[in-house]
Amino acid sequence: MSSQPHDHIVKSYDDEQRRLLGETLRMGGMAAAQLEAALDVVARRDDKAAERIIGNDEAIDALEQEISHDVMKLALRGPMARDLREILAAIRIASDIERIGDYAANVAKRSTALNLAPPLPHVGGLQVIGRIAVQQLRDVLVAYRDNDVTAAQAVRDRDAELDAAYTALFRELLTYMAEDPRSITGCTHLLFMAKNIERIGDHATNIAENVWFLVRGNDELPPREKRDDSNTVAP
Amino acid sequence: MSSQPHDHIVKSYDDEQRRLLGETLRMGGMAAAQLEAALDVVARRDDKAAERIIGNDEAIDALEQEISHDVMKLALRGPMARDLREILAAIRIASDIERIGDYAANVAKRSTALNLAPPLPHVGGLQVIGRIAVQQLRDVLVAYRDNDVTAAQAVRDRDAELDAAYTALFRELLTYMAEDPRSITGCTHLLFMAKNIERIGDHATNIAENVWFLVRGNDELPPREKRDDSNTVAP
Repeated sequence: MSSQPHDHIVKSYDDEQRRLLGETLRMGGMAAAQLEAALDVVARRDDKAAERIIGNDEAIDALEQEISHDVMKLALRGPMARDLREILAAIRIASDIERIGDYAANVAKRSTALNLAPPLPHVGGLQVIGRIAVQQLRDVLVAYRDNDVTAAQAVRDRDAELDAAYTALFRELLTYMAEDPRSITGCTHLLFMAKNIERIGDHATNIAENVWFLVRGNDELPPREKRDDSNTVAP
Repeated sequence: MSSQPHDHIVKSYDDEQRRLLGETLRMGGMAAAQLEAALDVVARRDDKAAERIIGNDEAIDALEQEISHDVMKLALRGPMARDLREILAAIRIASDIERIGDYAANVAKRSTALNLAPPLPHVGGLQVIGRIAVQQLRDVLVAYRDNDVTAAQAVRDRDAELDAAYTALFRELLTYMAEDPRSITGCTHLLFMAKNIERIGDHATNIAENVWFLVRGNDELPPREKRDDSNTVAP
């Protein structure tokens, strides 16, 4: 179906595709670094660093634009099925990473609001779920780089762990708010920060499912454990 | 650049593209109906209806899959610039609508948790912001259908209104929680429901920006008012 008969043009298509993968991985690495930095500023209560993280999100957004542009150029060549999955997966994964970047920036943003009041306990619990999310993101990026469906499945399965840790933290925070109403505003920030991190886990899972799609096409995904139940239970 | 020289095949490409637009609009209409139904079950405290809404989200997800599939078929034909923007816009808009469907289902899901306790005030405030979000979504879908950049810009500008209403409700809820700690769990659900609706507004704005991209390509978007400040202020 490719309309370019010459070998060197086909090779340049591969180059473009490699470039696209490289950009998407770079974007993912940036989002992981942003999340780590955001967790760090929460722990250190560092407003200046939080501002930097919020500003850095623009670089991730710009990279998503660049990826869209490259996808466009590649799609213009009328790629074949596997190549097309490659570019569809890239655009979807870039969109997930962009969201992850937003969530990380929002964690940093809320940290500056938290810093207006005395430190709260439970910040430790946030660090725990944050570190799981960072690991999930790093692992799924490696799975994407290596076209490793098994590793992607492992990320997808581990999401239940993150959800359980999130739900536990959520319940703890609610109890604490009821015991000390002065903590309500601060704890609400922590609730949303925790939710952001739980959502980052969901996006890592989406990326894992796109790795599956990339390698296996429309083969049905194997079943997995159910996600966070905090909406109906804790809440 | 299109590799099909025959007129009737070109026409069938247009048919496919129209089908894609139709599916995306249908998906958007489903999401708007889901959101309206979710607001309604919150007001009526109707668990059975909430379950139905949660189940209906699968139909929206299935339609997104179908759209991805159609995008794939279209991209395989090696479309030209405007056609390619058409399919890129469709895939992005479908992804925004899918999120909107998730948020609407989450509102319904949380309503069943709310129903375990006595009714809370402020449910009225949620209805107000919910109705703004429904209108934003319906308006942007019409803008997409009509390729109407001006209408899309109006949606984008009106997002600030929704954000302001959200922020006001958020502050009210925090005050109420502090006054009556027994309301904390319920109000937390309302906080997240309000946030879901505010996010639906953001996705309507994303769709508006994709209408811009579709019609104007990579021309720079005009400036707009800043979004919700609840993260740093209220929170």
